[in-house]
Amino acid sequence: MENVKVILWGLGSMGSGIATDIVTNKQGIEIVGAIGQNPAKIGKDLGEVLGLNRKLGVIISDKPEQVLANNKADIVLHSTQSFTKDVFPELALIVNSGKNVITIAEEMSAPQVETPDLADELNKLAKKSNVTILGTGINPGFVLDTLILTMTGACQIVNKIWASRVNDLSPFGPTVMKTQGVGTTVEEFHAGVKSGAIVGHIGFRQSIYMIAKSLGWKLDDIAETREPIITNVYRETPHVKVQPGMVAGCCHIAKGYKNGLEIITLEHPQQIHPELEGVKTGDYIVIEGTPTIKFTDEQEIPGGIGTMATAVNMIPQVINARAGLLSMPELPIISALMGDVRQLIKR
Amino acid sequence: MENVKVILWGLGSMGSGIATDIVTNKQGIEIVGAIGQNPAKIGKDLGEVLGLNRKLGVIISDKPEQVLANNKADIVLHSTQSFTKDVFPELALIVNSGKNVITIAEEMSAPQVETPDLADELNKLAKKSNVTILGTGINPGFVLDTLILTMTGACQIVNKIWASRVNDLSPFGPTVMKTQGVGTTVEEFHAGVKSGAIVGHIGFRQSIYMIAKSLGWKLDDIAETREPIITNVYRETPHVKVQPGMVAGCCHIAKGYKNGLEIITLEHPQQIHPELEGVKTGDYIVIEGTPTIKFTDEQEIPGGIGTMATAVNMIPQVINARAGLLSMPELPIISALMGDVRQLIKR
Repeated sequence: MENVKVILWGLGSMGSGIATDIVTNKQGIEIVGAIGQNPAKIGKDLGEVLGLNRKLGVIISDKPEQVLANNKADIVLHSTQSFTKDVFPELALIVNSGKNVITIAEEMSAPQVETPDLADELNKLAKKSNVTILGTGINPGFVLDTLILTMTGACQIVNKIWASRVNDLSPFGPTVMKTQGVGTTVEEFHAGVKSGAIVGHIGFRQSIYMIAKSLGWKLDDIAETREPIITNVYRETPHVKVQPGMVAGCCHIAKGYKNGLEIITLEHPQQIHPELEGVKTGDYIVIEGTPTIKFTDEQEIPGGIGTMATAVNMIPQVINARAGLLSMPELPIISALMGDVRQLIKR
Repeated sequence: MENVKVILWGLGSMGSGIATDIVTNKQGIEIVGAIGQNPAKIGKDLGEVLGLNRKLGVIISDKPEQVLANNKADIVLHSTQSFTKDVFPELALIVNSGKNVITIAEEMSAPQVETPDLADELNKLAKKSNVTILGTGINPGFVLDTLILTMTGACQIVNKIWASRVNDLSPFGPTVMKTQGVGTTVEEFHAGVKSGAIVGHIGFRQSIYMIAKSLGWKLDDIAETREPIITNVYRETPHVKVQPGMVAGCCHIAKGYKNGLEIITLEHPQQIHPELEGVKTGDYIVIEGTPTIKFTDEQEIPGGIGTMATAVNMIPQVINARAGLLSMPELPIISALMGDVRQLIKR
């Protein structure tokens, strides 16, 4: 049986991590093409760029059309940008080349929310080429939607969903510090939120849309707030120093309302060194209903590894799926790939 | 759009609870037939028997062939017995009448394990009639398989799975006390396990099979142990009194081995009044891997409600599925049904 053939589009930290996971940990999958944009990587062998100390026979290219046209592949793993409008041309190119695609673009977990026209168009293109498009990742895609939905499966009634993903930004670099407002004054933080420079988490609306649609809740409204996490103690990382009274992170909260009642609350407070003020990181999910279900993971699932893992783990489901633009709740449950992936593919 | 039409087969505590859930909580589903065996219920209206204070226009019958032949229905919810060999003739009758079926028979969550011939036969019959068969329930079907598998979805590597479902048998009646050995001496307990009178949990092998198959692990062996939970303090319920030194419950453990290593461990210690010796009930799941994921639910998901809920919540997935004998990991993720179920059905 032939290996499952994958093309990678995007070789930043996520794309490189996905590639390394496939090469190092997976059986029955083979990388046959790699598209990057960093001039330092173009023309080099993927194995060398990944630091694997061996060649993979895959030369990194900055010519997507050529890579897609010249390589037979079952699926493209796409890791370039976050917003549907930015990735649409790339996804269209992939789909038109007759290949399935998994993208980690956050908005693509449910592109209907922000860009229904582009979602329609992608769905049509996918059906025309008889391929499947899926957006996934740790969040949106897993912790605050797929996992919550799965837990509601043991409920006869769900009255309200509350979940919080409390993490530690300390390991991240300067870009994340900026987009989360770490190290700003309170005034700068509010100005940054207003200007769009401080974005917080991308994906709340998509997670809430997937939850509500799957449960059958019709929401009146989704509202988001981004508030500064003001520190009372000195906190620092190699990239930022935060004095007491300044901003150590962004508490981003999204709420879904039904008949005027707050029925879904998703919180994602992200900051550096939460432990310095006794804040425990973790994933917390509470389904209020019949029965009420509360699950807690006191070591939050790491976002980077989790995103790489979810993207790779959905490969069989996406190859096996019917054609079209699909979302996580429409596909068979995700699980880790510990055996030969070929045995999971229905040819 | 027509309501989703359901026939109930089995009106014990589970079947009655399923019926009440559908009538009370669900939109767009309608019960069109009910098959029972208790002479006190036969010929009566289902609504009266459920204690709903209103008639549903569904007369409980003990003639399955008639009910199946005389009622157009999308699906049968089947809640009679635990073992595939016992329910096979009933499931065959349902499938041959052209109806999908969800059964809570524990072994039917993965009938390939104990009765591969019957599983093959059911798969063939289902395909012939273009219908789908699913076995589900809280466990097997959800906590110790579907939920575990979903959590592995965020892992690049899984090295070992450990999960424990610690519950309280105090609310249950005399039958459960007997099958779990509550109130026996240690000698009686071991004799009961040997004779098969004390069974512990039904479904471990099915859960382990589903986990291993989905992950792609080839197991060498599955081993089970049933040990007495000997109490150090006096415990009692309305049905049983347990003196110190006697048995308060059954600690049933199943282990899956791969290359000689214990790679899956599922524990289900069931006893009356665990709190009297400081034992906390709950569902505990630990996926050791990259990353390691630990989820805890300190109030275990109640088994009865959970089983009724999972059976009802899978109705759309089963009606929409391809024909054949399927299992939970092969279907789209389970979630609660809080809206009009008709909108989830692909006609």
